[in-house]
Amino acid sequence: MSVRAGIVVTGTEVLTGRVRDRNGPWVGEQLSELGVDLAHITICGDRPEDMEAQLRFLAGEGVEVIVTSGGLGPTADDLTMAVVARFCGREMRLDAAVEARIAAILEPLMKRWPDLDPEAVLAANRKQAILPEGASVLDPAGTAPGAVVPPQSDGKPTVVVLPGPPRELHQMWPAAVATAEFQRAIAGAGEYRGQMLRIFGIPESEIAETLRLAEDELGPPFAEVEITTCLRRGEVELVARWQPAAQATWDRIAEIVGERHARTLFSTDGSLVDDQVAELLTGRSLALAESCTGGLMAARLIDRPGASAYVAGAIVAYADAAKRELLGVDGALLERHGAVSPEAAEAMADGALERLAADTALAITGIAGPGGGTEEKPVGYVCWCAKRSDGALLARSMTMPGNRTEIRDRSTTFGMHLLRRLLRGEEFPL
Amino acid sequence: MSVRAGIVVTGTEVLTGRVRDRNGPWVGEQLSELGVDLAHITICGDRPEDMEAQLRFLAGEGVEVIVTSGGLGPTADDLTMAVVARFCGREMRLDAAVEARIAAILEPLMKRWPDLDPEAVLAANRKQAILPEGASVLDPAGTAPGAVVPPQSDGKPTVVVLPGPPRELHQMWPAAVATAEFQRAIAGAGEYRGQMLRIFGIPESEIAETLRLAEDELGPPFAEVEITTCLRRGEVELVARWQPAAQATWDRIAEIVGERHARTLFSTDGSLVDDQVAELLTGRSLALAESCTGGLMAARLIDRPGASAYVAGAIVAYADAAKRELLGVDGALLERHGAVSPEAAEAMADGALERLAADTALAITGIAGPGGGTEEKPVGYVCWCAKRSDGALLARSMTMPGNRTEIRDRSTTFGMHLLRRLLRGEEFPL
Repeated sequence: MSVRAGIVVTGTEVLTGRVRDRNGPWVGEQLSELGVDLAHITICGDRPEDMEAQLRFLAGEGVEVIVTSGGLGPTADDLTMAVVARFCGREMRLDAAVEARIAAILEPLMKRWPDLDPEAVLAANRKQAILPEGASVLDPAGTAPGAVVPPQSDGKPTVVVLPGPPRELHQMWPAAVATAEFQRAIAGAGEYRGQMLRIFGIPESEIAETLRLAEDELGPPFAEVEITTCLRRGEVELVARWQPAAQATWDRIAEIVGERHARTLFSTDGSLVDDQVAELLTGRSLALAESCTGGLMAARLIDRPGASAYVAGAIVAYADAAKRELLGVDGALLERHGAVSPEAAEAMADGALERLAADTALAITGIAGPGGGTEEKPVGYVCWCAKRSDGALLARSMTMPGNRTEIRDRSTTFGMHLLRRLLRGEEFPL
Repeated sequence: MSVRAGIVVTGTEVLTGRVRDRNGPWVGEQLSELGVDLAHITICGDRPEDMEAQLRFLAGEGVEVIVTSGGLGPTADDLTMAVVARFCGREMRLDAAVEARIAAILEPLMKRWPDLDPEAVLAANRKQAILPEGASVLDPAGTAPGAVVPPQSDGKPTVVVLPGPPRELHQMWPAAVATAEFQRAIAGAGEYRGQMLRIFGIPESEIAETLRLAEDELGPPFAEVEITTCLRRGEVELVARWQPAAQATWDRIAEIVGERHARTLFSTDGSLVDDQVAELLTGRSLALAESCTGGLMAARLIDRPGASAYVAGAIVAYADAAKRELLGVDGALLERHGAVSPEAAEAMADGALERLAADTALAITGIAGPGGGTEEKPVGYVCWCAKRSDGALLARSMTMPGNRTEIRDRSTTFGMHLLRRLLRGEEFPL
């Protein structure tokens, strides 16, 4: 038996794309770990009728659980609690204990903004203490409490109401899951297993062909494994999900993928190339020299906690003068080969190794566009050089498709893979 | 009269969050410019029943236009065209002209991947030439053609079928809009006007209070202007949308906001702080010295085309040794005040000015966490220093909330505002 869920993301700022929704996917992942199938994410603005229509739609599709995010704030357009109460057929009432709790939370906050009128702040937040009767209240992580609202009758969904800010939502999720209402709603969720394979350096159509071969060999049981593939930041991701009875089928599919893509399959345990590079850098000291990526490569590496143990630093030598002064790249070399050339990339790597006293360096120089391209070196032409202080080196140059942002982003992915292969002592096969 | 639309985003990789949907918001913005109201975005996986349910839901909500993105690829889980055809009551048939067109597109592509079996590639892509009868075909930007599928009967929506890759979708959008079917569907869309106000340095509850005051003053006409507010990257965004008859009402609301937030309202014309800083940097030369942001500030500035005209470069001095060697920060100063201190920030700015021969510098040093915090300097404590070569200087230190990623991201926003105020010759009011 399978338990299905839907997620309703509210907020005109999300609907219109000014704010990216990060809650839908996150909640979906948590549900998946609980064996619950996410069927739909729906996004609406701050119009209550649209939100109610989405709740009805999801109920009509037979989902057992609906999770909403957003619309719990102090402003008048934050209406989620009231809409959910109406949908579940429950009255709204002021919860005095919750009101006192919010007041206690606001006290230190108001000290940070001494110019504010405390009465106005309390009034703005009192509405956050008005909650559906019969719901389990979830303690606020910010100032907005959430709720798990049970259905009035069997066959209707249980609604989990959570705030929009991802950090608050994450913090309140375990309490929501722990409620008796939620556990009742997901009783009967089946066990699923999952695995992700990551491949770098092939087009997506190649994976489609591999899966066709697997289907030819395995016949109908192939369909017992749910497989999706997608291209992400230049990597092909293959995600599989199956019930325990289909384990042998998946094992064979994974084997076929591993055989056909032996040289390009780099992750079978969910690890990102970023995880692998971080692991490989343990005990080493990395220096970066960036031109077109302009700090993105450093930012991507330093995004991980603990990066200070192996990232010495980066030199973003965007102007030619900076390449000469900060990285010691020979002016004559720049003149002869150009600032975007394999020669410049290697000289930048050498400069980074020396100036940052590091044992590993990665240099990236390229033409991110939209201007600056020539016939010989068009927009998208990028040169990478990964080098160790012992002289070992992997270098590549190629022209990447896409716009400025895409070229810069994919250049960091390519750089990660070059670094990974250098650190593993591999040759780069592309 | 208003014309409403819905967007259906397909793909298990989007539903599960492995790939972020960028199409929904983009299409929503295009529709808004055409005077069409976006009511719903719905996201489903690759299960055709779920997609069909979403199409029925949107039709039931009375939308005139549905735009789908994704599911046009060569793999077996790409089923959008077939689902839309069934929903619109139309047969699918192979379009020989389209098939020939795809083959011509694939020819040069196959040369890039010489190991591929050309027959397999053509077979994988033939299905992309099977299209709903009676639809307007949209020429592919990649290899997948799109379609505008008119309804079989009045009162049903017109469905625009577009591919998932954003670049392809963007490229094909004008052709979709130009079709007679689309124009018929959106006939009657009313004129809307819009404006965005951006404010930095106040909590969102302050704007809620301002809007309450405006409502008190204006009474019922206040409701004629649709206003949403949200916090984004530390800035408060207020977005308004109104029909021409409500112009005076909006003018008064904007005036009230401008009066109450005179010192913190920084944008009334839609410009981002990034736009304003780029403009202010014209003719100048900027050097960055980054520690906790680790290249993010540089990457954010260099994301804009033409940044090479004013960004000299950046030094990501993550390790203390790098601060000394690359930025010339005095070791004794680091020892006395710590690497995260106003003194270190100013020394880093001085070093960046000198080493990159720039006339403007911004330095950021902080504790992004999760480790490294102390009682005196907790996780989130960040110091900024913006300095000009003529000695003018704005510096701030504060403790920011959030996790590592949020602290680093907001530190760049704060840095942008500090830079903006320095370049405008303003004092920082916070």
